[in-house]
Formats: sequence, C-alpha cells, structure tokens
Amino acid sequence: MSQAEFSLIRRYFSAQIGPPPDESTLLLGIGDDAAVLQPAANQNLVQTIDTLIEGTHFPADTDPVLIAYKSLAVNVSDLIAMAATPSFFLLSLTIPCPDESFVNKFATGLRQAADKFRLYLIGGDTCKGPLSITIQASGYLPDGLFVSRGGAKIGDRILVSGRLGAAAVGLASLHHRLDPEFSLSDEQREQAVGALNKPEPQLAMISLLRSYATSAIDLSDGLVGDLAHILQQSGVGAVIDKASLPVFDWIAEHDQYDFALTGGDDYKILFTVPETQLDNMLVQSRLLELDVTDIGYIVENGYILDDNSSHIDLSLQRGFDHFAA
Amino acid sequence: MSQAEFSLIRRYFSAQIGPPPDESTLLLGIGDDAAVLQPAANQNLVQTIDTLIEGTHFPADTDPVLIAYKSLAVNVSDLIAMAATPSFFLLSLTIPCPDESFVNKFATGLRQAADKFRLYLIGGDTCKGPLSITIQASGYLPDGLFVSRGGAKIGDRILVSGRLGAAAVGLASLHHRLDPEFSLSDEQREQAVGALNKPEPQLAMISLLRSYATSAIDLSDGLVGDLAHILQQSGVGAVIDKASLPVFDWIAEHDQYDFALTGGDDYKILFTVPETQLDNMLVQSRLLELDVTDIGYIVENGYILDDNSSHIDLSLQRGFDHFAA
Repeated sequence: MSQAEFSLIRRYFSAQIGPPPDESTLLLGIGDDAAVLQPAANQNLVQTIDTLIEGTHFPADTDPVLIAYKSLAVNVSDLIAMAATPSFFLLSLTIPCPDESFVNKFATGLRQAADKFRLYLIGGDTCKGPLSITIQASGYLPDGLFVSRGGAKIGDRILVSGRLGAAAVGLASLHHRLDPEFSLSDEQREQAVGALNKPEPQLAMISLLRSYATSAIDLSDGLVGDLAHILQQSGVGAVIDKASLPVFDWIAEHDQYDFALTGGDDYKILFTVPETQLDNMLVQSRLLELDVTDIGYIVENGYILDDNSSHIDLSLQRGFDHFAA
Repeated sequence: MSQAEFSLIRRYFSAQIGPPPDESTLLLGIGDDAAVLQPAANQNLVQTIDTLIEGTHFPADTDPVLIAYKSLAVNVSDLIAMAATPSFFLLSLTIPCPDESFVNKFATGLRQAADKFRLYLIGGDTCKGPLSITIQASGYLPDGLFVSRGGAKIGDRILVSGRLGAAAVGLASLHHRLDPEFSLSDEQREQAVGALNKPEPQLAMISLLRSYATSAIDLSDGLVGDLAHILQQSGVGAVIDKASLPVFDWIAEHDQYDFALTGGDDYKILFTVPETQLDNMLVQSRLLELDVTDIGYIVENGYILDDNSSHIDLSLQRGFDHFAA
C-alpha cells in the first residue's frame, strides 16, 4: 500500500467500522498484509463478493454516503439469501484521486451500514482508478443450514419479501425513461430513488429462511431472471400470479409491471416454502414484522406468468442485464 | 448476476479452477448467492483483498493471461507474508464488454496461478466497466502462528527473499523512462518485464517465516516504504547496508539503486529474524532452495541507508505511490 493510500486508510478506516469484534475472534485487523481471524466453531463460513461501478450501478453524482451504504447492503443481501448471519467484510475502494471529502463521506455511509447490518471491517485495499467499490462479506450459519438456489420442490409456494420494482422505477426516473403520461408524484419519486440508492436488506429474514425455506435468492437482476436461477438449479418450473405481486404503488396504478418483473436492484428475498409449512411461515413472518407475499408455486416444468385470463411464457424473457446496451 | 454475466461465468469459471477442494470443506461453490465452506478446525483464517487496475497496475495492452496470473499472485504474496497457506479465493472481474477472447485467456492465467499457488476459486462477480480485477484470497495457519508487521525487535537481522528492483526497471523500460546512457540488453529487458508481469511468490517461504520470523511484509510498494511499515508498527528503527542489497544485475552495473529502494511490484518477502537464529534460518533457507539475503538490522530508532562511507536518512524518502502523478 502506498504512503498516500496508507494515510487515507488510516485516517478513515482504521477506526472501528461496525460492531466491535470479540478479541478472540479477530486476531489481527486493518493495517497488515492480511487480517487474521479465528472462525466460529461448528459453523459454516459463507462468503460473497460484489462490485459496484459508477455509471453501471449508481449515477455519477450519487452521494458517497449512499454509495458506501449500498455497496455493503448488496453484499448483506447475498448473505441473507443464504440464511447466513453477517459477521465481517473486506473493502477494496478505487477512486480517481485521494479525495478527502469523498473518503470521509464514504466512511460515514460504510459505518452506518456496518452498524445496521452488524458486520465489521477487517481489512482492505485502496487504488487509483475509475470509481468502483468491491466488498467481500462473510457470514456464519450452523453447520449445513444454508439455503441454496437448488432446493425448490414441486408444489412449493413461491414468496417474496417487501415490494418489487421501486428501484427500477427510480433508475428510469433519473434517466428520464418513464412514460411521460404516467408521472411520479414527488413522494413516489423520492421513494423510488430512495429504494435505488438505499436498499434495506432485512436481517430478520435469516431465521425465517433457516426455519422454512427450501431455496432462496436475492433479487438483484429482476424477479423473472432471478427466479429462473432457482428453477434452473432446482430442475423445476413455476407459475407466477401477476395479480398477487406486491409492487411499488405507481406500478400497479399504471399497469407498468415490467419494472417489477424484470427491473433490477430490488434486493428483496425470493424464496420457496413447502405448501404444508406456508401457514406457519406466514404466522412467523408477522411475528418478525416481515412483509412476505405468496406469489405463485413450483411446478414440474415451464415458466408461466398467469395474467388473469392469459398465460405468458416467461422463459422467453430475461432479467435486467448489466451488459445490455 | 445478469444473464450475460451468468453465461460468461458459467462457461469460463464454473469448471474447477485450482486444486479440487475436499467435499467436506467446500459445501457450496460457484453459482449461488454466496459460497459456503467448513473452515479448517483449529486454524486461523487469513484474509486479504487486492485490486489491479488497467493503467495503474498493468499497461493497457497486457496479455490477459498475465493479468489474471498477477492478480492472484499479488494476493498470494500477502498470504505468504503472514505465513498463511493459501486455500481459496473469490474473484470480481470488471470488463468493458463481455469479450469472450479476453475471458478465455483470463481464465487460463487464473487456472495457471491457482494450480501453482494451490488455491481454488469459490465464487465471484462480473461487472461492466473499466478493466479491473479484485481478488479476495484466504489462507490458513495453525492457531496464533501468524507473522505480523509489528514484531521486529532491536538486534533482529533484516532479510529479503529474491532480488529487488527488476519489476520497477521493467515498468520504466515500458514507459521509456530509463536513462538512455544505460540501456538494457534484450535479455535484461525480458527479465525485467517478466518480473513486472509475472511475480513469483514462493510458497516455501511460509515454513521459513513460521519457524524464524519476528515480522514480515510483502514488498509491493518498494523496500524503503514497506520496511517503514514494519518499523512503524514495531516501534523500532533500522540500518540497511546498501552493498548487501540483492538487486537485478542492471541496477548494480549502473548504480541505479533507486529502482531497488523505492521501486514497487517486487512481491518478495521482507522479514526480520533474531540474530541468534540467523545461521539456522540461513541453513534452512538453503534446504528449501530459497534465495534469502541479510541486508541490515533493527535498531532502537532512526532509518538509515549505510552507503559505504555515507549515511543516508531514509525517513525522508517514500515508497512507490499509486496515487503519485
């Protein structure tokens, strides 16, 4: 690490970020060639990595507080989708120049997210280059209790946490790509852009998934594409009931369901539950104050959207594509 | 992950990269929201993250095989500096477009490095953006046996593995920044550019460090800057003997020692050893076929280069700086 990088890191990232780790857990933190930990006993270690790029994942003028918050939140969303409890993370921050104001705000957002999602920074890297943030987050779960994309069974109900499509509407609004006939109210615009910039993964989902889920995925690329991953890896099909989809108000008002079906950046959890467990799971979700909606069911094959009278073949559609023009 | 990303990843990174992991160790690998592992029992987990950016860490026309190889090698170098045995890694690859030829070559280089350094790919992310590669690598070591930057003691000898400065000469040569009076032979140029593009961390250093080192750091930013980190974190000073520095031939021929003192990208190991252990360590290094050189010693304070008759105060110098113009 260079002198300039070193002083940047030291000033803004050497203070504890996130809840203080147990000394017996973190043996050596920030400021060496690598961090040294004592992994939790009898637990599986769950690891994910996600990169956010300026211009691809957030607009060029986004508040650094929000960039940092989202960078950590999207990784936490992956951990939750596995039913893992977030524990610690590493950060690689690439910035065009060692801009103190940027790093200060970025550290603030990182601290907010780390406190909220309860994981602490153990190390990192800082480089000069086009703005991008890579976070590698780790979590734990009791041996074998992870929830993969591959466990959905015929007859399982398909559920989703929260409401869909707000972030995609927010992105379209920022890019002036919304149909001018259907304008957003100021409040809706604020909600939509807020959903884009500040996804809120819910830690309470972890226990619900561990208790009931046969499969799960976090919704980053859009419902249709992400459910397709579950179907492919589980070797099954699905029927989705359009009328039951929990969507951002504006989407239902103007029948703009594509934002909920193929829009990305939701960071909600899509999961499957055996039909026999559905009622128990719904009771438990209310106790946990989780907003969970039954949107369809697993079948042997095919991938259908049931739109009242008509059946739309979703296997011809695709999710939000970061490489698309 | 988008459809295009997903198919890229599936085709080139879903095949085993690196030695096959034990099934009881890797419970879920590439292709889910996160990877799931059973950490090694009674071992510390060591984690590092490093990003390489086109234009900062490698020239724009570098062979993707070499880019991938170096991306993994620099992380392995960090693990070795802690005395950790490499085990597994995650990759985040950002490329301007989903270029099949690039990804194919990149996967080849990654496979070469993963096989050589004995660690396997467990997951990753692919994004659209300016070319950059982030790797987060993990290793293990017996509980408490890590070697930090903070353990150097007064009287310890300072040692370095390999020869210094070749990569910095290679970079200067590519940028036509070498003094035209002192041209490189074709063979020297090939060696120097090879050192820049293909650093070769030595796994055999791990056992040597565990047995003898009081502190260690990998040389990424140049000897002067990196030794300064050891001195700061150990609260000591040092005297370096210029005549004893093991350097790339051309450097000694033309007295161009700045390349060895402040040039970056060496990825050799700088470490300290109690004077009483020096002879045993040197015997052991020869048995391990490691080229290790005694270059100075730890003192109470000050940071001096002993250049025959004159003493140069190194505390006024700085290492290679990725943020420097």
